[in-house]
Amino acid sequence: MAEKKMWGGRFAEGTAASMEAYSESVSFDRLLYAEDIRGSQAHARMLAKQGFLTDDEAKIICDGLDKVRAEIESGEFVWKTEMEDVHMNVESRLTEIIGPLGGKLHTARSRNDQVALDFRLFVAARLAVWKELLASLVRTYVDRAEEHRETMLPGCTHFQPAQPVSLAHHLLAYCQMFKRDHERVADALKRVRVMPLGAAALAGTTHPVAPAVVAEDLGFEAVFANSMDAVSDRDFVLEAVFDGSLIMAHLSRMCEELIIWANPNFGYVKLPDQYSTGSSIMPQKKNPDACEIMRGKTGRVVGDLMGLLVLIKGLPMTYNRDMQEDKEPFFDADRTVSASLGIMADMLRLMVFVPEKMAATVKRGFLNATELADYLAAKGVPFREAHHITGAAVAYAEKKGVGLEDLELTELQEFSGEIGEDVYAVLDYQAAIERRATPGGTGPKSVAAQIGALKEWLGSL
Amino acid sequence: MAEKKMWGGRFAEGTAASMEAYSESVSFDRLLYAEDIRGSQAHARMLAKQGFLTDDEAKIICDGLDKVRAEIESGEFVWKTEMEDVHMNVESRLTEIIGPLGGKLHTARSRNDQVALDFRLFVAARLAVWKELLASLVRTYVDRAEEHRETMLPGCTHFQPAQPVSLAHHLLAYCQMFKRDHERVADALKRVRVMPLGAAALAGTTHPVAPAVVAEDLGFEAVFANSMDAVSDRDFVLEAVFDGSLIMAHLSRMCEELIIWANPNFGYVKLPDQYSTGSSIMPQKKNPDACEIMRGKTGRVVGDLMGLLVLIKGLPMTYNRDMQEDKEPFFDADRTVSASLGIMADMLRLMVFVPEKMAATVKRGFLNATELADYLAAKGVPFREAHHITGAAVAYAEKKGVGLEDLELTELQEFSGEIGEDVYAVLDYQAAIERRATPGGTGPKSVAAQIGALKEWLGSL
Amino acid sequence: MAEKKMWGGRFAEGTAASMEAYSESVSFDRLLYAEDIRGSQAHARMLAKQGFLTDDEAKIICDGLDKVRAEIESGEFVWKTEMEDVHMNVESRLTEIIGPLGGKLHTARSRNDQVALDFRLFVAARLAVWKELLASLVRTYVDRAEEHRETMLPGCTHFQPAQPVSLAHHLLAYCQMFKRDHERVADALKRVRVMPLGAAALAGTTHPVAPAVVAEDLGFEAVFANSMDAVSDRDFVLEAVFDGSLIMAHLSRMCEELIIWANPNFGYVKLPDQYSTGSSIMPQKKNPDACEIMRGKTGRVVGDLMGLLVLIKGLPMTYNRDMQEDKEPFFDADRTVSASLGIMADMLRLMVFVPEKMAATVKRGFLNATELADYLAAKGVPFREAHHITGAAVAYAEKKGVGLEDLELTELQEFSGEIGEDVYAVLDYQAAIERRATPGGTGPKSVAAQIGALKEWLGSL
Amino acid sequence: MAEKKMWGGRFAEGTAASMEAYSESVSFDRLLYAEDIRGSQAHARMLAKQGFLTDDEAKIICDGLDKVRAEIESGEFVWKTEMEDVHMNVESRLTEIIGPLGGKLHTARSRNDQVALDFRLFVAARLAVWKELLASLVRTYVDRAEEHRETMLPGCTHFQPAQPVSLAHHLLAYCQMFKRDHERVADALKRVRVMPLGAAALAGTTHPVAPAVVAEDLGFEAVFANSMDAVSDRDFVLEAVFDGSLIMAHLSRMCEELIIWANPNFGYVKLPDQYSTGSSIMPQKKNPDACEIMRGKTGRVVGDLMGLLVLIKGLPMTYNRDMQEDKEPFFDADRTVSASLGIMADMLRLMVFVPEKMAATVKRGFLNATELADYLAAKGVPFREAHHITGAAVAYAEKKGVGLEDLELTELQEFSGEIGEDVYAVLDYQAAIERRATPGGTGPKSVAAQIGALKEWLGSL
Repeated sequence: MAEKKMWGGRFAEGTAASMEAYSESVSFDRLLYAEDIRGSQAHARMLAKQGFLTDDEAKIICDGLDKVRAEIESGEFVWKTEMEDVHMNVESRLTEIIGPLGGKLHTARSRNDQVALDFRLFVAARLAVWKELLASLVRTYVDRAEEHRETMLPGCTHFQPAQPVSLAHHLLAYCQMFKRDHERVADALKRVRVMPLGAAALAGTTHPVAPAVVAEDLGFEAVFANSMDAVSDRDFVLEAVFDGSLIMAHLSRMCEELIIWANPNFGYVKLPDQYSTGSSIMPQKKNPDACEIMRGKTGRVVGDLMGLLVLIKGLPMTYNRDMQEDKEPFFDADRTVSASLGIMADMLRLMVFVPEKMAATVKRGFLNATELADYLAAKGVPFREAHHITGAAVAYAEKKGVGLEDLELTELQEFSGEIGEDVYAVLDYQAAIERRATPGGTGPKSVAAQIGALKEWLGSL
Repeated sequence: MAEKKMWGGRFAEGTAASMEAYSESVSFDRLLYAEDIRGSQAHARMLAKQGFLTDDEAKIICDGLDKVRAEIESGEFVWKTEMEDVHMNVESRLTEIIGPLGGKLHTARSRNDQVALDFRLFVAARLAVWKELLASLVRTYVDRAEEHRETMLPGCTHFQPAQPVSLAHHLLAYCQMFKRDHERVADALKRVRVMPLGAAALAGTTHPVAPAVVAEDLGFEAVFANSMDAVSDRDFVLEAVFDGSLIMAHLSRMCEELIIWANPNFGYVKLPDQYSTGSSIMPQKKNPDACEIMRGKTGRVVGDLMGLLVLIKGLPMTYNRDMQEDKEPFFDADRTVSASLGIMADMLRLMVFVPEKMAATVKRGFLNATELADYLAAKGVPFREAHHITGAAVAYAEKKGVGLEDLELTELQEFSGEIGEDVYAVLDYQAAIERRATPGGTGPKSVAAQIGALKEWLGSL
Repeated sequence: MAEKKMWGGRFAEGTAASMEAYSESVSFDRLLYAEDIRGSQAHARMLAKQGFLTDDEAKIICDGLDKVRAEIESGEFVWKTEMEDVHMNVESRLTEIIGPLGGKLHTARSRNDQVALDFRLFVAARLAVWKELLASLVRTYVDRAEEHRETMLPGCTHFQPAQPVSLAHHLLAYCQMFKRDHERVADALKRVRVMPLGAAALAGTTHPVAPAVVAEDLGFEAVFANSMDAVSDRDFVLEAVFDGSLIMAHLSRMCEELIIWANPNFGYVKLPDQYSTGSSIMPQKKNPDACEIMRGKTGRVVGDLMGLLVLIKGLPMTYNRDMQEDKEPFFDADRTVSASLGIMADMLRLMVFVPEKMAATVKRGFLNATELADYLAAKGVPFREAHHITGAAVAYAEKKGVGLEDLELTELQEFSGEIGEDVYAVLDYQAAIERRATPGGTGPKSVAAQIGALKEWLGSL
Repeated sequence: MAEKKMWGGRFAEGTAASMEAYSESVSFDRLLYAEDIRGSQAHARMLAKQGFLTDDEAKIICDGLDKVRAEIESGEFVWKTEMEDVHMNVESRLTEIIGPLGGKLHTARSRNDQVALDFRLFVAARLAVWKELLASLVRTYVDRAEEHRETMLPGCTHFQPAQPVSLAHHLLAYCQMFKRDHERVADALKRVRVMPLGAAALAGTTHPVAPAVVAEDLGFEAVFANSMDAVSDRDFVLEAVFDGSLIMAHLSRMCEELIIWANPNFGYVKLPDQYSTGSSIMPQKKNPDACEIMRGKTGRVVGDLMGLLVLIKGLPMTYNRDMQEDKEPFFDADRTVSASLGIMADMLRLMVFVPEKMAATVKRGFLNATELADYLAAKGVPFREAHHITGAAVAYAEKKGVGLEDLELTELQEFSGEIGEDVYAVLDYQAAIERRATPGGTGPKSVAAQIGALKEWLGSL
């Protein structure tokens, strides 16, 4: 149906049906309808300001576009695949409603800069949502950390119990990850909110338009510097999807821990029924499905990023149709990141930690061994020897099936004459946590300071 | 709505709405409905054979499933998200139709082995389609090659004209790529068509089922060897999507060439109107959209593969819910690969090559320079010197704006006394092609042999 | 130093030093020296057979190449970066040793087909090693499985204990993964061992060479069909690196389990000292370093694959210098895969499983719950109700802190009057394993059959 | 050799040789020697300030470390694989030089926070270099753009000539890409320069250290907020490698254009001999090797990023040995990015653009068609009709083999009576460029403004 296309005049043959299906984007870019309309309205107002339209004309256009949006949102709008994309669908309906005046919207604009604007508006809106979801998740972590300042957890390196920490401290580690994500997204937004309208097809326009006016209207801080770059730059999408990949990676780390903690051998956490499933065959089971799916969905967003990197490799200037493939990866990443952040916050709010189980492992894991070695070192034993003595004491206690703190003083003194009654204060796990009082450490003051700083940051947003 | 779930009994709280949305798969795995039904029918027949069902019961189940399929295909079937997946949707409708007998289908089967079977059936069916599309594309290349046995093309290395080849030879190079893809897909199929049913949840079943019977019924060559592997193996999907990535990479190479060839500076090809677009602003334009989109979609399939590789990294035994994320990447890759192979074949059939333009470049590119150097070497000039002499002659001709073959004999003899009248036969481009007559070379006999061998292969499929 | 280059004649300026460093490949492709020499010797023998060289000349060349190899292997060979690559280094030294005759090796050969041959020989040799390492790893799994036929392990789905299996069955699941990898590598080899020599620069050669002769000499089954494809095909590398990625993914799954199993809360395994480290600070620690590194190295090979996929996207025919970047990813993947397979086999041989710990979890996890539900179902209780009853009994036992099998008959009968004395035989864990006797299940006969089949397969290699 | 390890005491068996080779990092992390020493010196000064060392002791340590550095830089230092990593190698040599005092450096420090600091120092230093290289490349683009303000180029969309632009404008588009990269790297640096020292193994330290003092000493703006995050955060590496991936993607776009522009069918550019190669077989060739290799190396950095994303997926808290695999990808990406940026700047400085060839294509491509359509529209012809008329005129001129501007007025008037003598001013290509005078367009004033703004930005760095 070449005759239907705006550019069809010179073409002898119509577009193949397989090509219509292969190249249409309206099935996914209709998600941009609100941005397309918002962008067109700002464009119309600018055209009026610059004298291309009368104020009345601009008003008719803006009102017409409002009507189109209302139709879309009420579901009466009929999307047409042969109209290819969201822009043509909206514009064609506008023209049906307000007549040929609709065509004037095209003044000094091409689909190349129009789609760039729509997509930037959309990505900017979604990144703003990510920021809120990240902040909300951090807030939930802080809340749960406040409850568990005194809960003792075996801190691990190499997934082996290493030193006791408070559960609060562990949870607050995740706050730092998501806070960094928040900063990264904020940085990305600076590069998203750059106005491309006025770049036209690629070379700029012959009409004296005012991109800065549209930018201000839409809340963008900057205007494109080079029209060829403006129509071919997709860096902002890649940066957003990379930030999303890191968010998912952070979530995947938490999911991994929750899945293991929910295994009966750990039993550190009871996951909420609302985010778990049972088995239709095995009546004893409670499965951490939400965590598993979230961990799995990490791959999805990484895949979206990789797809985009392959896409832009080696593309010559300026707009190439390959770039149409930039939208679905972002839509997919956005859906995944947004849902995952929300669900993690909900789960975290509802999950029940089991301090007794954590405490039991602290003991079983000889997590005061470092303390004993430090104690000996403080008494003047060379650290290497102190390390060796402690290792021997651990082996002895392990064989006996008790903790170091359960050994008699005489038993301990078999390993070193330097050990005195004061050793028991040192072997106390809670004391080991408290001693790590430097900034950022697991000691209660540090934890309180972390919580305070995070609250201040949350308050400042 | 915990009470709706089969496993809900022990759960105090119902599933959160956000979790329903996050974890449901019916929105995409409904694509597997035909395989789910086919698998269940084969399972029912086996259960009858093994005495778990009477023949009548099996028939009622199979007929009921036929009805469900008819409902789905006519569009009357109501998919329910709260039923989570395709399996529960189908089974629950079956039970509505035939009553409690429907529940007996669950004998010796779990969703873990059921979904593995459905997905294997689906992937196998799609890979069979890929094989056909690949063969059909190769056939089209062969057809076009036959037309262009005499068409001369500047063969490139480093994207610089190097030696003349026939367009046929160039097109046949792609046949080898897609033939390899065909073989790779055939190899993958051996590992797809392995029966997982009978693995049950993970450990096998206590019922004396006969997986080999179901395998034969469904045309699978092999039966799982280990039940834990059977429910957790997703290698077959990764292998399929890798094969798809290579197919797209090969297509992207052809697209790249077509895009450049369609640029007026080359003008080697006129792409079909049916797969091109024009510009609503620039009336002179004809854009190679299908090629651009296809090149762009390469990233998509690579992204699908990467997502899957992230997914399976570090998953412990056996089934983990992460694996639910295995389907969409394959569906996406399959849609992309299938559509792209079909469209490339259609385009190839319709595109018009422009031999004059190719010939003009052969001349402009001094593609007989190697011939002159070889000629001198054959006359006893050391190759290094022959190379040097030729370089000088090329520089001279370039400055004059003519080809080597346009120089007078006396001019050529300025560069070397060894050059005689017979040099002109050597400088003939077509002769240069013909001289490369060894197997696999660009010479006409080799090209004929390649075409013959490909036809034989196509005939044998 | 343009004058040093074979092609330098026409160039006014020498190559920049930064370019020498950027483009040289000899720092890594020297790994191909043995293949380069082997390929050249076969080429020389073919040239003699076809009459381009006398037998004496071929012998002098082959002997000279033997000398070059000896120099390289003894360390006296001086590699020169300005010679760019391994081919030029070897050829230039050969010519020093045997004089201008060395130049004749170039007859009917270009660096484009030469490097393709060298790399195919190398990849083929390494894939053969992978096959051996995979077989050896499977053998080790089989050995350990034989030892642990009676060892009971909580089989997991969703990383929650699900049903008891034998440790043997669990280990044998990995055999299936690595056996598939073995088959996949064997399939890839068919596409690696294709002779490219004779394709020359891209178009074939004017000399009547005999690629089939060289192919037979080097043990390749097939000869290139199209010269343009022959010099630009790198599919074989991608396929090899994909196969390597899956091998690493399988290893990463095992590593994940070992890391968790080595945590004191599981304690299922004591990893060998030889593949663990301690902590210089925390004397109680024993870290599963080899497993962690191996899991981490999975990313490395996936990254190699990703790099290659980006590399080939959109490359026009034929050889492009981009392709030089194909070697390091394979070298890196090969080093990683080979070392990892060997180390996993060594670790597996030395690690000590702790059956008591596994058995304790089986009990704690109520892994006989499915058995009770099945028992009730067999007595005629609808499965849904049986599932519900069992759930209640599990909850009761859990509260009491005992297993189902520890409950009195009267206690059990509170949940269902259908329960009789025979329930205790059903609740026996070992019996639950034995009941899963169908092919591929965890029952002892199935395990024995799996071991038998794997031994047979190993014997057949 | 368990006895050599600091932690060996409790281990019965020494580390396996294969494990030494598999797990050592000194072969690559020795690159961090300068940062390791710098970090240790700052740590020693802090320890003195906090009273753990006397000033004299700190001085002896710092001087000793200076000596170690001198030995490394002179090449006399003997790296020992059995010492595992750079930290142990440096510390052990320090202790040889200054005696047991060397051991005091370990106070309040573990290898976990030490390696984090070293790596952050290294990444920060390299990103600072990237910023300089990016600025230098932008400067070169600006220089070349200034030369080519008047050079006319066919601006492309869909790789089809679309509208004329100045070469300057085209080059300045790349400035925007690399300027964005510069900003992105600067943003990343904020998250790299965060002090991790004081986190110790994972929980903080019992010694009253002052991380802020070390931070100030080393020029870091911030101090870690949570010790568990401090030892396990690798986000900064991923962000750096992502930024590197985008830089390479931008370079790959330029390379793609240069490779095509250097093909004789375009002939827009003569690449410098210093960054090209010839062919030893085909004397007419000049290959754009540097561009091809650079385009190929894009995959390498993307692969590095992918590897890192796989690496961190699903890692539980805190340090896991998997993380050792974080360094090589960054080293590789850094080498690639740094060399590529430098070489692109050098090439760009030396390459010769060929304005005549560009101008010839502008004409051949009917790049004034948009102007004619706009002209008609301005005369009141509806745009759709103007588009149609222009299309017909283009077809007519194309058949005649001339440009639109070569047609007689009477010929043009055949297509529309609205066309007058003034059309020729409109059809002038240079005028078409000049008319696009809005900010960011290709008009000379816009180009001048772009150059001015970029110079100002460069001046401000």
